[in-house]
Amino acid sequence: MDTRSPPVESGVAPVIVLVRPQLAENIGATARAMANCALTQLRLVAPRDGWPNPKAVPMAAGATDILEQAKVYESLRDALVDIDRAWATSARSRNLTKRVVTARGAAAAIRTAAAADERCAVVFGPERTGLETDEVVACHELIEIPLDPSFASLNLAQAVLLVAYEWFQTEAVPRVAEVRDPGRQPATLGQIHDFLDHFEAQLDDAGFFRHAQMKPAMMTNLKSFVLRAEPTDQEIRTLHGVITVLSGRRRHQLGE
Amino acid sequence: MDTRSPPVESGVAPVIVLVRPQLAENIGATARAMANCALTQLRLVAPRDGWPNPKAVPMAAGATDILEQAKVYESLRDALVDIDRAWATSARSRNLTKRVVTARGAAAAIRTAAAADERCAVVFGPERTGLETDEVVACHELIEIPLDPSFASLNLAQAVLLVAYEWFQTEAVPRVAEVRDPGRQPATLGQIHDFLDHFEAQLDDAGFFRHAQMKPAMMTNLKSFVLRAEPTDQEIRTLHGVITVLSGRRRHQLGE
Repeated sequence: MDTRSPPVESGVAPVIVLVRPQLAENIGATARAMANCALTQLRLVAPRDGWPNPKAVPMAAGATDILEQAKVYESLRDALVDIDRAWATSARSRNLTKRVVTARGAAAAIRTAAAADERCAVVFGPERTGLETDEVVACHELIEIPLDPSFASLNLAQAVLLVAYEWFQTEAVPRVAEVRDPGRQPATLGQIHDFLDHFEAQLDDAGFFRHAQMKPAMMTNLKSFVLRAEPTDQEIRTLHGVITVLSGRRRHQLGE
Repeated sequence: MDTRSPPVESGVAPVIVLVRPQLAENIGATARAMANCALTQLRLVAPRDGWPNPKAVPMAAGATDILEQAKVYESLRDALVDIDRAWATSARSRNLTKRVVTARGAAAAIRTAAAADERCAVVFGPERTGLETDEVVACHELIEIPLDPSFASLNLAQAVLLVAYEWFQTEAVPRVAEVRDPGRQPATLGQIHDFLDHFEAQLDDAGFFRHAQMKPAMMTNLKSFVLRAEPTDQEIRTLHGVITVLSGRRRHQLGE
């Protein structure tokens, strides 16, 4: 997977800000989700049960660096003082004239801003209530994650995960990656066609095509099937062996 | 948010399959993540602590319909018997020649397949170990979610969330057109696995596996090859005939 992972430079990744988080377990799970997506900087605004909190550790699943380096602030304003661009997150619509973007749209904007050396942050509210309207207003834009409107309430760490994931997908990750076993050597068409000749000869020999007029359509299907699988050269060798063994013992018994 | 939510039709959403899930809490959290993204069908293969399990309910955060309608199976094979296309999920690379896609790539493919009335499933392994190689082989393709390779271990429900989220972000109109034979009916996994049993039995009978220790790797390659081709039901019938005729005449000549 190394070839697909984007180069992560310190400074370009957004800061995650949790405002008045209630459960330390959710702070731990947030750290884990951040680590999954190569985010490192966590800021906590007035965590309900204080900080540090040992209850956060098990849920972090090893992302303890993030917990240890988390910074604590008294207010959202303090937490954002050195930030150039901030996105608030919200599960519900607000009566605000505010630019609203999807998580994917925000991720692209964060990459663009970071490329211009702007420091970015994404702000998440408390588990039960979400951000206050004033807190949303204090950020530049609003992220609404597109979800089923009849069941849009996300766990805090899952909301962080989706934003972090979208950020991680924006660079160097091919949209439709196709990764193959590094040992895979695709068979050449010469190898494939040789195999298909062998296959057809053995089917003829075994009387597979009971009616001559069936043969073209059946061979077309079988060839399509084999080519669609994009066989490796190893597989072609195995398939030769399969055909030889299945029919060869027959031939051997006939004394051919 | 109503204007941005895609139209979700029943039947097109993929089935989520959890193989040997250990913690009922994670089954509940999975149901919540599914509900966030308008998925409804959950299948459980041999859940460790049995099913139903009251410990799943609090983590479902109201997605109890999904828990109540979850179906339980003894084996992955049983759970996939009526499925046309299945994606396995894995956090680690495998020595398999298997098409590997991102969660986003899989989401697009699921939309395309569903538009052709194909039943899709995404399969997740147990929390600690992930899917066995045989279970990955039993599916058509493999999803690897692009994450920081130095911290790629996702909580089970978060892995489900990312796949479900990507599915929900795709529009009902498929992005990537895939040209299909209009008469093409994909074989179900039940049909494919029955064929693979027949194939293996005939190879055994013909003495194909000269050394017993070669057999698992060779069968893994052959199974990967067949599944990669995504055979139609017509092709599976033809392949049964191929195997029967190639080995049957041998048997006939032997007077068996």
